[in-house]
Amino acid sequence: MPRISYVNGQYIRHAMASVHIEDRGYQFADGVYEVVLIVNGNMVDESLHFRRLNRSLREIRMEMPFGLEIFKLKISELLRLNKLRNASLYIQITRGVAPRSHSVPNTQTSVIMTVRPLALPRREWLEKGVNIVTVPDLRWKRSDIKSIALLPNVLAKDDAVRVGAFEAWQVDDCGKVTEGASTNAWIVRDGKVITYPAENAILNGVTRQALLKIISTLGIEVEIRPFSISEALNSDEAFLTSSTSFLIPVVEIDGKQIANGAPGPTVQKLLNAYSGHVWDA
Amino acid sequence: MPRISYVNGQYIRHAMASVHIEDRGYQFADGVYEVVLIVNGNMVDESLHFRRLNRSLREIRMEMPFGLEIFKLKISELLRLNKLRNASLYIQITRGVAPRSHSVPNTQTSVIMTVRPLALPRREWLEKGVNIVTVPDLRWKRSDIKSIALLPNVLAKDDAVRVGAFEAWQVDDCGKVTEGASTNAWIVRDGKVITYPAENAILNGVTRQALLKIISTLGIEVEIRPFSISEALNSDEAFLTSSTSFLIPVVEIDGKQIANGAPGPTVQKLLNAYSGHVWDA
Repeated sequence: MPRISYVNGQYIRHAMASVHIEDRGYQFADGVYEVVLIVNGNMVDESLHFRRLNRSLREIRMEMPFGLEIFKLKISELLRLNKLRNASLYIQITRGVAPRSHSVPNTQTSVIMTVRPLALPRREWLEKGVNIVTVPDLRWKRSDIKSIALLPNVLAKDDAVRVGAFEAWQVDDCGKVTEGASTNAWIVRDGKVITYPAENAILNGVTRQALLKIISTLGIEVEIRPFSISEALNSDEAFLTSSTSFLIPVVEIDGKQIANGAPGPTVQKLLNAYSGHVWDA
Repeated sequence: MPRISYVNGQYIRHAMASVHIEDRGYQFADGVYEVVLIVNGNMVDESLHFRRLNRSLREIRMEMPFGLEIFKLKISELLRLNKLRNASLYIQITRGVAPRSHSVPNTQTSVIMTVRPLALPRREWLEKGVNIVTVPDLRWKRSDIKSIALLPNVLAKDDAVRVGAFEAWQVDDCGKVTEGASTNAWIVRDGKVITYPAENAILNGVTRQALLKIISTLGIEVEIRPFSISEALNSDEAFLTSSTSFLIPVVEIDGKQIANGAPGPTVQKLLNAYSGHVWDA
């Protein structure tokens, strides 16, 4: 069975799925995206994803090309054609095709969607934790917009991969950890969970948002504030989150071990609670 | 005669010129570009453009897909097929097609090229000058790389267009004008030409580089240093440059007139000298 992708209203063989070279997504990174987990045919945290998609579009002066119900019909059809009920869904919306010019053209929005079988985080990552490195945060001042202008994130991730690390935590001019290349960053100190505030410097992850709600129901204290690398190194636990990574314990930063170098009890508790949230969606 | 574009080794009708949706240029802005003026079939400032292209690729950890001589053969063929001898050439190189993941994949580089008839700056822009607005510089910290992650530039240009301005000059956290959305920024004070230093905060324009050489041969003094908006407003002349704009006088900033509100003698002298450089290429 060939893999099928969605391109501007058509369901076509993935290998043939293409866009015009003057699609503004290709020449200007003029677009936004979402990655959504699909469990049993349903989107996990659907409303959070679509609220953010809507906001990202508005911030780059675009509008939703169609409403949520139409989106859901199209996504159902895409899942059916790919015979998938558990999947990772990728949605990308760009400003469409126009002769190349920086000025915003009057175009028809482009929409592409792909699905692929759900790849869960590897057991060893969850059981043993992962190592990360820190890199300077080189990104633009609106990382809260989930735009496809991801080159800085690609280079940060590459910095990690080149030294055998799982992820790169980006550090701002004040020495504070903002977030990873494709994940949010968290530490646990004295029983409190600490993560960077959701303003312009970070992407407010859907898993981050869902987890914050879960943490409050568990009665665990949260501090929404920046933390430094040295604070992270002196913390009791650390972890990262994303829609496709869930929660993964971090046990080493820049080659230095955190606490006893093994995943701690708070991360384990949060992972259990978050897993329940995902599978019961 | 249909317009022809170059896509990964093939010369195809522009309307059909497409790339796969998982080309990393489309999903990660993982690529770089050049815009080159073609006069009488020759590239203006060819070596400066290819030196910069080479550098941009190296900075994002890629290599030139083929050498300059091969590029020149392909460009000649593209011009011949489009029956053009005076043109604007667009070259874009991306990291190629791979299943979506932030990590840098091992792929075959994608190369696209388009040409279109040379559109010279309008006479009225040169004779009367243009107005610009200032906006905060939101871009990443490596604007010296000519990457396709241009969303901040698109939004800055849109800020200008929405208020009827020709261009937006971007202003950094220290109140200094870095450059325009798609042009370099210059002022003239007491006979000295002033422009921002070529380091990570600006794209070192090929026209900027060529013009600096011309200025030195004309015996005009240059100061390579940042300038503020108020200094620009109190300057004698101002202008902007790019490969397709040449030199355009700026006579108004944020609704305030510079000097007597008309293009001055230094800009005129530089435009004449630069035009000679272009047409004698």
